Amino acid sequence: MNVTIIGTGNMARAIGKRLVAGGHDVTVLGKERADAEAVVEELGADGSARAGASGEAIADDVVVLAVYYPDAKAAVEQYGDDLAGKLVIDITNPVNETFDGLVTPPDSSAAQELAASAPGARIVKAFNTTFAGTLSEGAVADLPLDVFVAGDDEDAKRTVAQLVHDAGQRPIDVGPLERAHELEAVGLLHMAIQGTLGTNFGSALKILP
Amino acid sequence: MNVTIIGTGNMARAIGKRLVAGGHDVTVLGKERADAEAVVEELGADGSARAGASGEAIADDVVVLAVYYPDAKAAVEQYGDDLAGKLVIDITNPVNETFDGLVTPPDSSAAQELAASAPGARIVKAFNTTFAGTLSEGAVADLPLDVFVAGDDEDAKRTVAQLVHDAGQRPIDVGPLERAHELEAVGLLHMAIQGTLGTNFGSALKILP
Repeated sequence: MNVTIIGTGNMARAIGKRLVAGGHDVTVLGKERADAEAVVEELGADGSARAGASGEAIADDVVVLAVYYPDAKAAVEQYGDDLAGKLVIDITNPVNETFDGLVTPPDSSAAQELAASAPGARIVKAFNTTFAGTLSEGAVADLPLDVFVAGDDEDAKRTVAQLVHDAGQRPIDVGPLERAHELEAVGLLHMAIQGTLGTNFGSALKILP
Repeated sequence: MNVTIIGTGNMARAIGKRLVAGGHDVTVLGKERADAEAVVEELGADGSARAGASGEAIADDVVVLAVYYPDAKAAVEQYGDDLAGKLVIDITNPVNETFDGLVTPPDSSAAQELAASAPGARIVKAFNTTFAGTLSEGAVADLPLDVFVAGDDEDAKRTVAQLVHDAGQRPIDVGPLERAHELEAVGLLHMAIQGTLGTNFGSALKILP
């Protein structure tokens, strides 16, 4: 599959690494093309990754918004109708500046807000509860990561589940897109306890057994 | 420590079992005294558990509301000022009848609603993300359960953490009582995926490593 990743940060790199490991091709779009080129170099030079600049036309049917929530919202608004029909994966946690609350309306979620801004896109929430370090590692305590997936388009969710599976991780379908509200609550909670646990964003949330 | 458990269902029995295993004494209050007596019998007849009827005076400083949310709210209203100064543990998940949403206001939580109904009580949220079966077992995949604890009273949270620790499980302080909003989202999510996972309420949520 061909996947476009918007973003060049830790999560963009980790998701890129997992997708390439799963046998997929990625295009990385950065605000600066040089940043995207650096990510592509890091992902390996076997031709499965290419770099571009955000704002350029997206050819792929799957797009990962691997940026902070405000930038994800800006990207969705920038691309507008060009996202119609595309599978758009929202990985964001819309935390406030003090990391103790969310900036989204209390009865909504980042994913639902993005969906409202891109009515033609097939938005799927995923990867918002997996930190970049564990995702890059591809395991926690020798177990695959649990990647929670929410969305209203069953085909789109199946595609995301396949990508997660190919990446060696465990997809868990948690239901419709409105479940993103709960997933983002989990994301906030997981971040909020990093200091207490002393895990420095190296922990992962698993449903056992 | 002496702990009063209001309720005679699966969670009341599981928490009672864990507390007794931790060396604590429990009083179980049931709507029907006979139900409480059955729980006490199940917990063992070594004198560390006694039965009573809900509504009777509570002598203990720690009270567990091990009932469904509407009944927890009724209990808090029934006892009123008698709960002032007591440590009250709210374990509820305020799910709706179809188990796909919560009945609490979107910017609140069961714990915060209960706290508003019992201004003198020291409310702590705990045990709402651990299913009764795993709690009764006291382990998942040979690991202690993670018991998330939220509250505004640090002393009260330390006491709950000690009880959890004595019970052989891992307490995780997630912050102030408003974090109950996220914990209840986790509770809903964990319930919502039981069908998909086929775990029949036998799974547990762990932060690894």
